[in-house]
Amino acid sequence: MKDKAIVLLSGGLDSTTTLYLAKKKYKCLCLIVDYGQRHKKEIRLAKKVSEKAKCDFRIIKVMLPWGCSSLIDKSKKIPYHRSANIGKRIPSTYVPGRNTVFLSYALSFAESIKAKKIFIGANSLDYSGYPDCRPEYFDSLNKVFKVGTINRNIRIEAPLIYKTKKEIVELGIKYKVPFGLTWSCYSGGKHPCGKCDSCLLRAKGFKEAKEKDPIYDRQNF
Amino acid sequence: MKDKAIVLLSGGLDSTTTLYLAKKKYKCLCLIVDYGQRHKKEIRLAKKVSEKAKCDFRIIKVMLPWGCSSLIDKSKKIPYHRSANIGKRIPSTYVPGRNTVFLSYALSFAESIKAKKIFIGANSLDYSGYPDCRPEYFDSLNKVFKVGTINRNIRIEAPLIYKTKKEIVELGIKYKVPFGLTWSCYSGGKHPCGKCDSCLLRAKGFKEAKEKDPIYDRQNF
Repeated sequence: MKDKAIVLLSGGLDSTTTLYLAKKKYKCLCLIVDYGQRHKKEIRLAKKVSEKAKCDFRIIKVMLPWGCSSLIDKSKKIPYHRSANIGKRIPSTYVPGRNTVFLSYALSFAESIKAKKIFIGANSLDYSGYPDCRPEYFDSLNKVFKVGTINRNIRIEAPLIYKTKKEIVELGIKYKVPFGLTWSCYSGGKHPCGKCDSCLLRAKGFKEAKEKDPIYDRQNF
Repeated sequence: MKDKAIVLLSGGLDSTTTLYLAKKKYKCLCLIVDYGQRHKKEIRLAKKVSEKAKCDFRIIKVMLPWGCSSLIDKSKKIPYHRSANIGKRIPSTYVPGRNTVFLSYALSFAESIKAKKIFIGANSLDYSGYPDCRPEYFDSLNKVFKVGTINRNIRIEAPLIYKTKKEIVELGIKYKVPFGLTWSCYSGGKHPCGKCDSCLLRAKGFKEAKEKDPIYDRQNF
């Protein structure tokens, strides 16, 4: 029988690819976090991705009521057209402590159900520069997980951490990731905005991999 | 002007004493976590403690819906009369990842409002043996807070970590902590049960400090 793993699933390109990698080896349970994102589309699509992957999922609500980011505070504007600055200047979409909060829930879940791994789709090459997406962050959190639990063997795995978006797209195609179901855009319109960091990084990946992004094939989600 | 600090406040003996220590030096904001405890009495009293200390508070709801502990799952029994085993065997009241979840919220709050410290009333001498109450746990989490934030200077302070319950009671008396408002018992009855780890440790503290616990003076809360 396969060991259990928790997969943090946002329904985006990276976390969905991570789920498809993880489920080759583990019995995966998806943890979907509703943290007051600007739109609920990513929650809805993350559920669809879990179902498509034939994995159970849990949705938890997380309140971060201190108006800390344009990603959860609609009075703030999402920054657009940052191509030249992506990865250099940390944008207002940064949510303080977000991955620490999400991963601590995953830790609680993992220890409770005796899962061995926690997968996260974080990426430190083609990314927005968030400090909680870097390898040294995950290394230090793994130490916390070791000393702060009874079961000292729960580990975070970030298999995409050193991959470019191009490589992630290629991996996804290899593992038959349903890219058409994934949603990366920070906004929740009918179609991706094409201007936010997340859309720009995704487009770069598909372009460099010389693949067509199926998200643009669909009229509706 | 004083620097800001977040204080995790459960309304118990330790966190209330910690608040009174912290507020000597910092402008404190109390973070009260409603995580589905067996009773709401501790939330109500934590609010009263914040008001008494003239500090603002935030209450956040945390869901840990994986039936992991007798502290949040009423179908499980609270262990009683463990005097001989306290600190040796970890009891069923252990909530996997609890302090990591709480401190990650505090981190998000602290970075959002530019607070410099996060205070927690953890204690590693007269305690139930929880792994996430030990000094090495806080040291490793401080490293995470350094590498995982833009403001790399937010630090956890656990001023009671090496104190006995006796010393905590003595400190509380020195700093005029309203012990009569604090609630330690794992159950939420009219009076403390006197049998759970938390009641036993509290009673030990007052007995050794040769002080009377004002909680028994009151007929109602």
